[in-house]
Amino acid sequence: MITVESRFLVGDLLADAVNLLDRDDLESWVDCFAERAVYQILSRENTERNLPLPLFQCESKDQIRDRVLSLRKANVTNLHRDRHIVGPAKLTAGTSGTIRSESSYALYSSTFEGTTRLFSVGTYRDQIRIEGGKAVFDERTVIVDMFSVPTMLSTPI
Amino acid sequence: MITVESRFLVGDLLADAVNLLDRDDLESWVDCFAERAVYQILSRENTERNLPLPLFQCESKDQIRDRVLSLRKANVTNLHRDRHIVGPAKLTAGTSGTIRSESSYALYSSTFEGTTRLFSVGTYRDQIRIEGGKAVFDERTVIVDMFSVPTMLSTPI
Amino acid sequence: MITVESRFLVGDLLADAVNLLDRDDLESWVDCFAERAVYQILSRENTERNLPLPLFQCESKDQIRDRVLSLRKANVTNLHRDRHIVGPAKLTAGTSGTIRSESSYALYSSTFEGTTRLFSVGTYRDQIRIEGGKAVFDERTVIVDMFSVPTMLSTPI
Repeated sequence: MITVESRFLVGDLLADAVNLLDRDDLESWVDCFAERAVYQILSRENTERNLPLPLFQCESKDQIRDRVLSLRKANVTNLHRDRHIVGPAKLTAGTSGTIRSESSYALYSSTFEGTTRLFSVGTYRDQIRIEGGKAVFDERTVIVDMFSVPTMLSTPI
Repeated sequence: MITVESRFLVGDLLADAVNLLDRDDLESWVDCFAERAVYQILSRENTERNLPLPLFQCESKDQIRDRVLSLRKANVTNLHRDRHIVGPAKLTAGTSGTIRSESSYALYSSTFEGTTRLFSVGTYRDQIRIEGGKAVFDERTVIVDMFSVPTMLSTPI
Repeated sequence: MITVESRFLVGDLLADAVNLLDRDDLESWVDCFAERAVYQILSRENTERNLPLPLFQCESKDQIRDRVLSLRKANVTNLHRDRHIVGPAKLTAGTSGTIRSESSYALYSSTFEGTTRLFSVGTYRDQIRIEGGKAVFDERTVIVDMFSVPTMLSTPI
């Protein structure tokens, strides 16, 4: 049983998790994650074959923060803007008071000249915890149906 | 007046109805429908001209199930993966305790090589009933703005 | 603190605001706005540089209504159908009982022959007021990442 209050907190987290990326506020995006959170990107093909090799993986909030720091320093080429469109989340009660969420997304990438292309579509499989009146990710697994490899490494999905 | 509880049950149904297709779990998708449910796909053009000729129609859950069975047997070519992105639903109270829902969708189709294209955009017009603590479709009418004819017949939208 | 009731009223407004455009019911769309509402379209580039020059602006409901009237009279070429897909809204309590909302959208445009293209992606930044049991916009600012100039002037986003 998931309370109405929890549903809205989770909804805020799911909106923040993409809006902050779209605003290029990666530093605030890090705060969507719990200290021991896992953030990983898997291909759909590997997931369906039970090959758990991730395309990208961070195993703690510190790792996620480091990644963002290195993006800020290293990433001066390939400038673009993201725009995520996320569908409605299906929430189910998980273990130890956590909430599982599944939602689909389409991610568009725009150049600074205003040209847009579809960059990735896929699904978010999340494990979420409510702590201190706020929802945070224990785990966010992104399963990509489609992606463009070279650009993919530059920013999170 | 639609209760908060009903809104969440309807939300779960709307998420399931596309997530199950995206997971290729067509058999579970059938259970989104009531026994005497109608599932149909109309073109927007025909709808606006009040020409009710559907592109595809099932008039009961048994027909929907049959269709899924035949897809499993016949459909060995044109393998692809779906990804639906659905917008927020506008709910209104219908007759006899039913709920009407309208929501827009974009449907992307990916090959197994990871190439994605926009396959269909349109709207879902649903009539939904709550029974036994679960929401099911009495009717799901898909109105397509755009679609690719040859592939369309292979899986539901 | 935003009440559950208010959240649903806002959700209905956000759905209506795009569904009515998609149905080409521009006259009803006007009623999504308060009398002194601002409706404007900005480019993301200008917004980020704090250059507030809008691509399009109406400063009252009367101006919005006039714009719709002129569209009905003048706009006989460039016929198309819109389809908006909007992501989940992040709501925050604003001043004087208003609610701020931020949500992302993708807008597809289809010809009457059934060909669809991505027309615009961007974000809605809204200020919303509840009056008389209904939510209306005090302000809807559309910030576009991408757009096609020539067609853009024909209908609202």
